[in-house]
Amino acid sequence: MSDIVQTTGMLAWIAPAAAVIGLAFAAYLAIWVLKQDAGNERMQYLSGLIQKGAKAFLIAEYKSLIIFALVVAIVLGAAISPFTALAFLTGGILSVIAGYIGMYVATRANARTTHAAQTGIAAALKVAYRSGLTMGLVVASLGLFGLALWAIFFLVNAAHPEPEIVDGFVMGASSIALFARVGGGIYTKAADVGADLVGKVEAGIPEDDPRNPGVIADNVGDNVGDVAGMGADLYESYAGALLAPMVLAVAMAFTVGSPLGGGLIEEGNHSIFAGFTLDGILALIMPLLFAAGGIIAAIVGLLAVNTQDPNKIHKALNRGTYLTSGLELVIILVLCLIWQSVGNIPAVWFFGCTAAGLAAGLAIGKLTEYYTSYHHKPVKKIAQASETSTATNIIEGLATGMFSTVFPALVLVAAVAVAYICGMQVGGKEWALQFGVYGIGLSALGMLSTTAVTVGVDAYGPVADNAGGIAEMAGLPPEIRERTDALDTVGNTTAAVAKGFAVSSAALTALALFVAFKTNLEHHLGKDAMLVQLDNPYVIIGVLIGATMPFFFAAMTMGAVSRAANAMIVEIRRQFREIKGLLAGDPGVEPDTEACVTISTKAALREMLLPGILAVVIPVVLGILDVKILSGMLIGTLCCGFLMSVYMANTGGAWDNAKKYIETGVHGGKGSDAHKAAVVGDTVGDPFKDTSGPSINILIKVVTVVSLVFVPLFANLGGGVLHGIIG
Amino acid sequence: MSDIVQTTGMLAWIAPAAAVIGLAFAAYLAIWVLKQDAGNERMQYLSGLIQKGAKAFLIAEYKSLIIFALVVAIVLGAAISPFTALAFLTGGILSVIAGYIGMYVATRANARTTHAAQTGIAAALKVAYRSGLTMGLVVASLGLFGLALWAIFFLVNAAHPEPEIVDGFVMGASSIALFARVGGGIYTKAADVGADLVGKVEAGIPEDDPRNPGVIADNVGDNVGDVAGMGADLYESYAGALLAPMVLAVAMAFTVGSPLGGGLIEEGNHSIFAGFTLDGILALIMPLLFAAGGIIAAIVGLLAVNTQDPNKIHKALNRGTYLTSGLELVIILVLCLIWQSVGNIPAVWFFGCTAAGLAAGLAIGKLTEYYTSYHHKPVKKIAQASETSTATNIIEGLATGMFSTVFPALVLVAAVAVAYICGMQVGGKEWALQFGVYGIGLSALGMLSTTAVTVGVDAYGPVADNAGGIAEMAGLPPEIRERTDALDTVGNTTAAVAKGFAVSSAALTALALFVAFKTNLEHHLGKDAMLVQLDNPYVIIGVLIGATMPFFFAAMTMGAVSRAANAMIVEIRRQFREIKGLLAGDPGVEPDTEACVTISTKAALREMLLPGILAVVIPVVLGILDVKILSGMLIGTLCCGFLMSVYMANTGGAWDNAKKYIETGVHGGKGSDAHKAAVVGDTVGDPFKDTSGPSINILIKVVTVVSLVFVPLFANLGGGVLHGIIG
Repeated sequence: MSDIVQTTGMLAWIAPAAAVIGLAFAAYLAIWVLKQDAGNERMQYLSGLIQKGAKAFLIAEYKSLIIFALVVAIVLGAAISPFTALAFLTGGILSVIAGYIGMYVATRANARTTHAAQTGIAAALKVAYRSGLTMGLVVASLGLFGLALWAIFFLVNAAHPEPEIVDGFVMGASSIALFARVGGGIYTKAADVGADLVGKVEAGIPEDDPRNPGVIADNVGDNVGDVAGMGADLYESYAGALLAPMVLAVAMAFTVGSPLGGGLIEEGNHSIFAGFTLDGILALIMPLLFAAGGIIAAIVGLLAVNTQDPNKIHKALNRGTYLTSGLELVIILVLCLIWQSVGNIPAVWFFGCTAAGLAAGLAIGKLTEYYTSYHHKPVKKIAQASETSTATNIIEGLATGMFSTVFPALVLVAAVAVAYICGMQVGGKEWALQFGVYGIGLSALGMLSTTAVTVGVDAYGPVADNAGGIAEMAGLPPEIRERTDALDTVGNTTAAVAKGFAVSSAALTALALFVAFKTNLEHHLGKDAMLVQLDNPYVIIGVLIGATMPFFFAAMTMGAVSRAANAMIVEIRRQFREIKGLLAGDPGVEPDTEACVTISTKAALREMLLPGILAVVIPVVLGILDVKILSGMLIGTLCCGFLMSVYMANTGGAWDNAKKYIETGVHGGKGSDAHKAAVVGDTVGDPFKDTSGPSINILIKVVTVVSLVFVPLFANLGGGVLHGIIG
Repeated sequence: MSDIVQTTGMLAWIAPAAAVIGLAFAAYLAIWVLKQDAGNERMQYLSGLIQKGAKAFLIAEYKSLIIFALVVAIVLGAAISPFTALAFLTGGILSVIAGYIGMYVATRANARTTHAAQTGIAAALKVAYRSGLTMGLVVASLGLFGLALWAIFFLVNAAHPEPEIVDGFVMGASSIALFARVGGGIYTKAADVGADLVGKVEAGIPEDDPRNPGVIADNVGDNVGDVAGMGADLYESYAGALLAPMVLAVAMAFTVGSPLGGGLIEEGNHSIFAGFTLDGILALIMPLLFAAGGIIAAIVGLLAVNTQDPNKIHKALNRGTYLTSGLELVIILVLCLIWQSVGNIPAVWFFGCTAAGLAAGLAIGKLTEYYTSYHHKPVKKIAQASETSTATNIIEGLATGMFSTVFPALVLVAAVAVAYICGMQVGGKEWALQFGVYGIGLSALGMLSTTAVTVGVDAYGPVADNAGGIAEMAGLPPEIRERTDALDTVGNTTAAVAKGFAVSSAALTALALFVAFKTNLEHHLGKDAMLVQLDNPYVIIGVLIGATMPFFFAAMTMGAVSRAANAMIVEIRRQFREIKGLLAGDPGVEPDTEACVTISTKAALREMLLPGILAVVIPVVLGILDVKILSGMLIGTLCCGFLMSVYMANTGGAWDNAKKYIETGVHGGKGSDAHKAAVVGDTVGDPFKDTSGPSINILIKVVTVVSLVFVPLFANLGGGVLHGIIG
């Protein structure tokens, strides 16, 4: 490799450096949050219960994942390479650390937010948002840090780049994310559904009432589901989005005559890599530099999140997102212009790819808001239908959720097309396809380049929610609860928007990783063996199996919530019946909150294993049968899963806000028949939006990245044991 | 063509002959049914109201379709060929005739079944089933008759076979089926939901109470939805399943050197068809002969449907289905053996293809029964969850429905694989792919070869349901209602099984038609232009759009039911409020049933147009853009639509029977909280199982057959105006 290429490769170190800056700033924010006053003894006691429950769950979860992780690592070490196994473990461990830190800060920020709310909205917003951003920065920085180091050693500075090692890191991230999402989702909704049904509906006591033994579990659930779960989700999307364009760049550089490298040259029994061109090394490290820019932009964006006006919280949060996005776009544009001026390809087009991704993310976020916020027609129509009956509330909600998939899908289609077209311009006629696909990879990265802020805005929600719960349980004056409620309401919308981001980035990332998977297999098996045409019977079978996966997954996770919620309901009813004076509110009588925490913890751990293991095992089994079946399956899961995920997340969000809308006093307000109908919708929506929908996101990515990692195995089997028999 | 080939081609006339026999037998059954005693004046009056409502709706529906049909015919005449336009019109007109005859007999059989129930179960079953089988035979016979004649003139006896003309017949069938299903589904559920919510839930009067003004509309809905709608659905599946292997046989015969024909030979500016081999003509006419056998088998199968024991109704119906299936298998085996002995290919393997399809149909039917009948665990669990709350009933129902997609999808995968493998054996190494796909076409036909019985068993359900309604409204003694209820309960299960059949045959048919579509395009554009690989950006965009279609469709149809039901609720409430003495049951006070019939009719006609038109227009638009986008879209709609359809049909069926299970006295029985929760589930399930789910079936087929018909247009555009730009 020429000196200039080697020197340029050194720039990759900017990425871990930016990650360290991100971590340092996260530490600063965390220390600031922890320094705030946690309020009176009662508040600290309640916050302590939540901390204890969340910690107990996460540690139990991680413990039960150790065996899984070791088994997978051993399989990877034997079937692929020991370094892949090691990368897998680091990807998982960093996810665990990110989740733990985020949960640690979030569960301590809740009482501090409640206390700050006594001063005013601005102070409370500051505490809640800073704790959220801590999580966001930790997620993005650890993801970038880990992936960048593996990439530097095994792609950038390697004599022969070995993508299957770096793939392992993302597989580790994916696997943990899957369990975190599924487990966290089951935990939080078992507690939520159980506490609401017995407390609000049967006993008629308010939400978050201290007499309800399920309330602590519910609050713990917000943290393990929405903080740790969402964090792990976006951590792995982020790592995957970083990986995809790098793997595609390496694949191109492996091809003789490509603008990115000299190809693989046969020398004796080995194939030697002839090295990257300057454009090649830039194509490889640019994703890392874009991501580094994203972290810096997120830190700057924090400055914009500040308001005194309860009606402007949403605007303040949006300001932060827009400032970060704008800054990131400028950074990317500058980087592309530099690339174009030093390299030999018109790299400025790549700006179009990333901008398309970022714009699509914002657009899908806005669409999600339209379909799930009660300021718009769809939710108002659900509220209206609640007046007629419960059944019409459910029908209208499901119809709204199904319809809400259409425009996000079209936006995604547009993003793919624009990114592809922009990428093609770089490659010219001959390399149009490859650069087009690289462009799709960059669009996913563009969407995720603001991950820190997305996670931050999302993780802020549960903190505000918990803060409200503590205010209620600690018996603080109603104006405090009003302030935390103002924060919480905005948090519900931002959470929905973050879900829109999460699912669309998952789809784009999986798409880019799928192309990387196919390209890698083509390298091993030749193009003719990898003709995955739509009328090939293996492909058709695969697509059908793939489309079934999201339904299967949704059914399993919904069933899990249903079973766990039932156990919770039985326990809460038992306590109301057997603990004397509890419902009457006699002083000194406390519910046994720990029993409920234990039920949620055990149920989540028990129920997360099967779906998690199947998501990892099924693609490997199909790939061993035939890589064409697997290819079809990946596209089936991707497309059908995207729609199911959006459908379920939006349906749940819309039901939730239809209930909240009625609670503002319309259609009879709280306690009316319409409200009762809306409460049923909201309860059904809980596992939709917080368990099944988000789990499908990760399913999409897990199956793809597992397939990518196991390419060497499938290639050794000549494309699978059934290869060529019928397709 | 040699003499022997030409003589063999004459055998195709067996098909229209068998169709005429089927029609004659249907006429005999219809006359028999109409000769039965229609009961007392009150029963005849009620039956007359239903007849009037059903007739008014069908005529209004057909009227509003005339413009659509003419516009499409003009477009087809201009863009494809005048004969295609004519075939399209005949396909549609025969569908209309079949639907009208079926509805005519069914709406007259209801009171006659009620009257016969006074004698006993056996007599009532005989009337109800014979009226159902009338519909079944008319559907199958008219489908076979029309398609066979077009095929004889433009495929079998043509100097140059022109599949695009015969395709037009199926497109006509599809278009009418779509409107019939969507319109009928909206009609029936608007009436059902509205009548139940105000009558049963609000006013607390029993189902089918004569005071309820919505009951007649509800009974009319059963006929226009489940009789005319389901009939049109299977009529078009049947026509499509007949068409697909024929088109594939012609495509193979067009290829020089294939075992089926001499290929297309250039002569001047024209390409002349060198003619079929003996195997070619047999491959072309065999589907017609299989279908002819199916009609004869269905007539024989009728003999087995007879019982005195109310607990053995289901067994008796199953006996009919099994006898027909067994006989049909023997006929197919004999035909394949004859083919093998006179031809040059090992045609007996085709028996494996058809048997795989038939077995898959029965297996999916059984699975549907398992997930939707209350004799099995899934429905019992939903009933159990109803005890906890309405929300858990809904969650458990949705989870059950989602899970219920998994095994049907795997059965379908198995059927595709087995049919493909059997087909391959016929083709040997060189023609494995083509014969494999022809085998898939035969498997769809195998599944549908018993269409007459499937429709018969299904159409029997609404007759029994109506008979019960008339017994209730006419104030007959409770034991009559008990007998009709016994018939009706079985009818619910058989309806669910028929839905399983309908959706799996739709998937297989669409699959075969998709391959025909791609093969035809390859003939025009060359194989390289039609490389529809999964990583092609157009294909990916297409699959994503295709996967969105079922969600879009389900949302539109659910929303339509919701809107129409609301109008119905307002009207029924108004009548209860304004018509003095109605609710009190004062003698001589009658509800204004016609107002409700008008609401359902108008809503159905208004709401069916947009989804129907979009289903036809979207594939044409995508194909004009690029045939690869269209190809992806067809597979996306097929796979995602199959799952959505099964999910929605089974969820609705399971909710319905969970309610019925509770009504047997478990979990507190009628009037308990569990029952109230189950009623909500049942109401939500109504549009699921009877509007959206079945509509998606037809969507799958419509988009495919429209694409197939417009192949010449897309080919003239060189594969679409965007062809080659990005994919």
